[in-house]
Amino acid sequence: MNNISRNIHTFIGCDSEYVDSDIVIFGAPFDCTTSFRPGTRFASAAMRNESIGIETYSPYQDKDLSDRRIFDGGDLELIFGNASRTLDIIEDYVASILNDNKRPVMIGGEHLVTLGALRAAIKRYPELRIIHFDAHADLREEYMGETLSHATVIRRAWELVGDNRIFQYGIRSGERDEFMFARDHTYMNKFDLKNIDHAIAACKGYPVYLTVDLDVLDCSIFPGTGTPEAGGVGFNELLDALMRLSGLNIIGCDVNELSPMLDASGASNAVACKIFREILLAI
Amino acid sequence: MNNISRNIHTFIGCDSEYVDSDIVIFGAPFDCTTSFRPGTRFASAAMRNESIGIETYSPYQDKDLSDRRIFDGGDLELIFGNASRTLDIIEDYVASILNDNKRPVMIGGEHLVTLGALRAAIKRYPELRIIHFDAHADLREEYMGETLSHATVIRRAWELVGDNRIFQYGIRSGERDEFMFARDHTYMNKFDLKNIDHAIAACKGYPVYLTVDLDVLDCSIFPGTGTPEAGGVGFNELLDALMRLSGLNIIGCDVNELSPMLDASGASNAVACKIFREILLAI
Amino acid sequence: MNNISRNIHTFIGCDSEYVDSDIVIFGAPFDCTTSFRPGTRFASAAMRNESIGIETYSPYQDKDLSDRRIFDGGDLELIFGNASRTLDIIEDYVASILNDNKRPVMIGGEHLVTLGALRAAIKRYPELRIIHFDAHADLREEYMGETLSHATVIRRAWELVGDNRIFQYGIRSGERDEFMFARDHTYMNKFDLKNIDHAIAACKGYPVYLTVDLDVLDCSIFPGTGTPEAGGVGFNELLDALMRLSGLNIIGCDVNELSPMLDASGASNAVACKIFREILLAI
Amino acid sequence: MNNISRNIHTFIGCDSEYVDSDIVIFGAPFDCTTSFRPGTRFASAAMRNESIGIETYSPYQDKDLSDRRIFDGGDLELIFGNASRTLDIIEDYVASILNDNKRPVMIGGEHLVTLGALRAAIKRYPELRIIHFDAHADLREEYMGETLSHATVIRRAWELVGDNRIFQYGIRSGERDEFMFARDHTYMNKFDLKNIDHAIAACKGYPVYLTVDLDVLDCSIFPGTGTPEAGGVGFNELLDALMRLSGLNIIGCDVNELSPMLDASGASNAVACKIFREILLAI
Amino acid sequence: MNNISRNIHTFIGCDSEYVDSDIVIFGAPFDCTTSFRPGTRFASAAMRNESIGIETYSPYQDKDLSDRRIFDGGDLELIFGNASRTLDIIEDYVASILNDNKRPVMIGGEHLVTLGALRAAIKRYPELRIIHFDAHADLREEYMGETLSHATVIRRAWELVGDNRIFQYGIRSGERDEFMFARDHTYMNKFDLKNIDHAIAACKGYPVYLTVDLDVLDCSIFPGTGTPEAGGVGFNELLDALMRLSGLNIIGCDVNELSPMLDASGASNAVACKIFREILLAI
Amino acid sequence: MNNISRNIHTFIGCDSEYVDSDIVIFGAPFDCTTSFRPGTRFASAAMRNESIGIETYSPYQDKDLSDRRIFDGGDLELIFGNASRTLDIIEDYVASILNDNKRPVMIGGEHLVTLGALRAAIKRYPELRIIHFDAHADLREEYMGETLSHATVIRRAWELVGDNRIFQYGIRSGERDEFMFARDHTYMNKFDLKNIDHAIAACKGYPVYLTVDLDVLDCSIFPGTGTPEAGGVGFNELLDALMRLSGLNIIGCDVNELSPMLDASGASNAVACKIFREILLAI
Repeated sequence: MNNISRNIHTFIGCDSEYVDSDIVIFGAPFDCTTSFRPGTRFASAAMRNESIGIETYSPYQDKDLSDRRIFDGGDLELIFGNASRTLDIIEDYVASILNDNKRPVMIGGEHLVTLGALRAAIKRYPELRIIHFDAHADLREEYMGETLSHATVIRRAWELVGDNRIFQYGIRSGERDEFMFARDHTYMNKFDLKNIDHAIAACKGYPVYLTVDLDVLDCSIFPGTGTPEAGGVGFNELLDALMRLSGLNIIGCDVNELSPMLDASGASNAVACKIFREILLAI
Repeated sequence: MNNISRNIHTFIGCDSEYVDSDIVIFGAPFDCTTSFRPGTRFASAAMRNESIGIETYSPYQDKDLSDRRIFDGGDLELIFGNASRTLDIIEDYVASILNDNKRPVMIGGEHLVTLGALRAAIKRYPELRIIHFDAHADLREEYMGETLSHATVIRRAWELVGDNRIFQYGIRSGERDEFMFARDHTYMNKFDLKNIDHAIAACKGYPVYLTVDLDVLDCSIFPGTGTPEAGGVGFNELLDALMRLSGLNIIGCDVNELSPMLDASGASNAVACKIFREILLAI
Repeated sequence: MNNISRNIHTFIGCDSEYVDSDIVIFGAPFDCTTSFRPGTRFASAAMRNESIGIETYSPYQDKDLSDRRIFDGGDLELIFGNASRTLDIIEDYVASILNDNKRPVMIGGEHLVTLGALRAAIKRYPELRIIHFDAHADLREEYMGETLSHATVIRRAWELVGDNRIFQYGIRSGERDEFMFARDHTYMNKFDLKNIDHAIAACKGYPVYLTVDLDVLDCSIFPGTGTPEAGGVGFNELLDALMRLSGLNIIGCDVNELSPMLDASGASNAVACKIFREILLAI
Repeated sequence: MNNISRNIHTFIGCDSEYVDSDIVIFGAPFDCTTSFRPGTRFASAAMRNESIGIETYSPYQDKDLSDRRIFDGGDLELIFGNASRTLDIIEDYVASILNDNKRPVMIGGEHLVTLGALRAAIKRYPELRIIHFDAHADLREEYMGETLSHATVIRRAWELVGDNRIFQYGIRSGERDEFMFARDHTYMNKFDLKNIDHAIAACKGYPVYLTVDLDVLDCSIFPGTGTPEAGGVGFNELLDALMRLSGLNIIGCDVNELSPMLDASGASNAVACKIFREILLAI
Repeated sequence: MNNISRNIHTFIGCDSEYVDSDIVIFGAPFDCTTSFRPGTRFASAAMRNESIGIETYSPYQDKDLSDRRIFDGGDLELIFGNASRTLDIIEDYVASILNDNKRPVMIGGEHLVTLGALRAAIKRYPELRIIHFDAHADLREEYMGETLSHATVIRRAWELVGDNRIFQYGIRSGERDEFMFARDHTYMNKFDLKNIDHAIAACKGYPVYLTVDLDVLDCSIFPGTGTPEAGGVGFNELLDALMRLSGLNIIGCDVNELSPMLDASGASNAVACKIFREILLAI
Repeated sequence: MNNISRNIHTFIGCDSEYVDSDIVIFGAPFDCTTSFRPGTRFASAAMRNESIGIETYSPYQDKDLSDRRIFDGGDLELIFGNASRTLDIIEDYVASILNDNKRPVMIGGEHLVTLGALRAAIKRYPELRIIHFDAHADLREEYMGETLSHATVIRRAWELVGDNRIFQYGIRSGERDEFMFARDHTYMNKFDLKNIDHAIAACKGYPVYLTVDLDVLDCSIFPGTGTPEAGGVGFNELLDALMRLSGLNIIGCDVNELSPMLDASGASNAVACKIFREILLAI
């Protein structure tokens, strides 16, 4: 009865207990290396709140979240102003999920949080491949003298997995050096998600980590992010690509860079919730 | 002269007297069953205010509102917290317009207000067909124990007109049960407005009521609504469909679910005004 | 450990279990009779989210929420568009709290929700007195033909408790008839909280229900409410009055009319959280 | 009946016909010389819309707008980008009101609009006195090379009425030269409204024009204005001063500089409406 | 060293000295004839501030602003409320840039500012052609009795250059008369940027002035403008057209009608910055 | 001439060259340890932009910024996500100003930036006293395991200067332990600025560093800050205290915690600019 249980707060339809679950979602509310407009720390709380505005059922996939066994572990307590300790906390948490043979699905935060998850994933899955949807290359060697940054996260990921294991899509912003680095070390599909079949073919049979920076979406459909980027992909284009990934062995994923306060209309929150639902149903 | 006349406030170009008019527009500022984010009660006032930002002339149709005879009756006084009495007020008002051989064009309000207009329309036009543009199926039997709700309005409409008389387009959100209901009882074109010719053919020769929930539009172009939905139709797609309906015998229509405070940029208001102008010129 | 417990979401420092608690807080997210600008339904969720921005310790009272035993029961599921059923749900919940010899502290919602709590309270405490802080008299016999409304709630309360048992403070808005009604049936202190000692003396020894409509505050300090009212009391004035009530036997209370979306700065949320903390520490 | 009358839009309680009226209110939506943040052109429309959130009854004065005979003439059509023609339009309109032995009450607009009204008033009442509530001295000889500006309006007024006929209160911003000019040519009470009795005594027996720049209010209570100024007067302080002016022969007045879009909470609109109601009841 | 140099504020990557520069950018913060929602005066300052959120490198053109020699001259001091003097100031400044054999790139402001630049350009380049991207025809003879207005600017331009020298694209709003005028006197491509090759062919070999009213973009991607217009072009469509113009002899250009305060998300600012970067790299 | 000089951007009236200056103002745009709502990084840019809305002349002090010799050095480039390196940069910059016998006036940023300035100040002035205006005690030993935080800055300052050299005013928020620490080690005047004479007397004859966290102001007058706090001081109260400090030997100071995006009305920016002007004129 209502007045004897404490207030449980989850993403809609994600109400399994941990032991019963197949997928574990959690928030990583960290945005301290964000150089322009911070605020992604509020994404996971906003998405839980706003998820009541969407349905658990997807007519696109004809599936329902109520059919899945998903546990919502809430938000990690991260250390504002200390990226290194923060990544350790994320790594530990993801490692424990993977050790329990469950799949972690993280809600960022800035994109740097992905590095913590990847560190845990690569330890358990040395053959890991990474599929990366983003407007930005995130391939800088350092940013303002720091190696741990939202702008360096895929470069750090490359140091973990090496050449030809990272598949980047939708990239349309970065320094000239980053695009040159990509030519030698990653597969990069600029501007859009076409040729997603290339990544699917290349990753078939391998464990895959999927990282979605929501600013891969055009800023018309997703203005609620720190560095909104025009010229991006539409909602249906992203949805199609995600559904086509469902045949892969996705052992973990994340959705990053929603900054709820920047889009007061709530539309960006709704888009993020819907993308998140579709990912949970697709993987 | 200005200082002896009182302040008349109408949608731009809609300044006929009632007796001279062919079309009667009015607002139905009601949003009390809205479960998520209320505010559509402000739509009609906002649209009158913002209509000065658009032109009376449409280059799409090469027609001008000044060529039409449209009366703006202002807003009905509805009863916050009492859906039943509210629907009665709307029904009475629409009935009187229809009895005067004019066509009602209502500005909602939440989508439930459509039910009041339909009750009047079906009495006068027993052969009525309904064309429904929306992101949501609105086909629930009840919602939180209530039968009168924005989420049940098309189900209630179906009870009035029966099978195969409702034509739904753009639907991309709902419970699984609603989509199953649609398979048996309505014509539903999911996701987009393609196959609008099907509705046109089926409705030819019958009186038609057109109800447009503006969230049928993609939330990139229309974030100012309570439950913005990605994956929707574009402005030109909606415009094309509306213009193609102009051959039908549309005896009434409505435009719903603009929530002006949610999109502070004013763009959603402008979109609603423009769609409204095109409807007034098309029907 | 974090990854095996589900996400508990409470007002800061209110983390007792129900059985151990002395005070039970809960949300009543209902705003359907609101005639002007709805949105108070979001108050309880916002206050839980924003409470992390305040401290558990009050230097005003030199007390800490961690010293109290407070249970946060989350939000009731209320029926949008049906005031009558909503009040029943609130009444039942409050009755069960009172039956367990705990004190309910409700977060509205529009002011009408108070009526549900009062119905339960008067049954258990027939000698109940009501202290009412508000900008508005809320004494109308009916509002737009409805007897259950935010504008009639104290009139309905008067029907429950009778003459001279309601003590109104800060009132500065209403119809002339409401002020005339107050002269005969309640104690009304217009404009401010002076003479709070009168209520304290009159209520000494009786069970007291305290209802705080936050718009009693001046709109400079509390713009985030549907009908902000200038000429109100300051924060320190309200705080002083609340602390002076602490000697009374307050058997329940509520805090109403925060509308979080109306004050995007978050300051109104912060004010509401702080007032709420001080009330929890004072009663 | 509703469906045969066109939509009349007035400030609440101001629904007399022109011929029956004693007071004529109208909007002067002009803000083109505003050097910092424009937007006051929206004030009159916003105040009409938002006036439904206040009551017609004032408990401060125990009077009701329904007891007065006030006509709302709507908004003048002014010329954006042409201050000179705009002032002519205002002057003509005010002159016609004065000629009909009614009192004009104008809603600005930037403060420059006052000049148009004053030109008409001084012609009819050569003995005119001016009471001026404002944060800014508005006494510049020119502003960016222009003589017609919001920053020069009281200097222009002084050219009309001469020394010792302008009574300025609340002034706390301006150039050094403006304060020096005031020492010689106007009565200026800096910072607050104290010594309002001086103006009352000096104006007794003369026709008085009252011009209220709402930024005389502290920006805590009135942030919705182009150049919000801290250190201003409170609502009660302004209200008291206005009520004390009620013994004077106020032949016209205006309320200026509300910029509705700047305060999204709506609180500034509500404050302006309430001040406006009190002025209408006081004069 | 930082503490001995004053604070230089430029658009990102535009840090050449004047004498070394090929392109001179400057702001024209004027919006006084704007009839609906002013605010474009803030565009140039906002674009400088927000430009740090984009990169200097364009993957679309594989060029970098750091390779160009661009001087940022800051903002002109224009006269609010005096369109005529304002245009003189702009004309003088542009003339001096052209005389130094540099190319002016102006950031408006409302579209009227283009007229000042055109007056200087036509004097130096009598064979000038004008390419005009806009949602609005801007071809009125006068607007509210004024000949200098954002709504008349292309009509005034036509008076300077004559028939068949103005190429309008994307036009989807205006009075019927404007569309009729265009049929006789300009080349107008309604609704989109298709057939841009027509303008390219016609302008080949002539000096070209390019004027981009950003509301040519669909309001989904660019809500931050005074009169947002649905049915417009997408970002990629505009980008493609701009890149195809790079073969022409563009002797000056401008970007107008960003109104930063209207899109609080910052996305419109980001779009404007990116378009501006691409123009600087393309011309 | 305008078109040969680059765009200089300073706080209004602060246009001296460095060598001529007595006071050096600069921004420290850092907010990475902010635990709740970041955004103070935008304060210095916003204050420069918005300073054109105030005057250089203060009627309170009858002084004008144009009489002072103030250099605006722009913003430091700080390291997001690295508090330690950031403080080094601030310390170096302040040290060089002090070495040139000028007085630094820093615009934060979060309050932690003060520590960098204090480190430089204490080296040059071992007898330094600190006057601290704030809503929060900022006396924690650590915050989330970090010693460098906005919540620990005055504790770190105490480690530099020792007992009885820090004078705290306006404090009304913190943990119980912080208030206990203050009793033993600092002078703390809770809630308001009364007894400012105590600090003045105690600091007379010593070099003084003044640090103003603007949230010492009541959140009615200053909502634009990350943790707005009710119950604070008014503008006039703060202004009076600042003017009374003018007799002291203030060798440096800072103004912190404006978060411009949180108060879209611009009023908080205006308040910060005005306070900043008064400080520059008072010290």
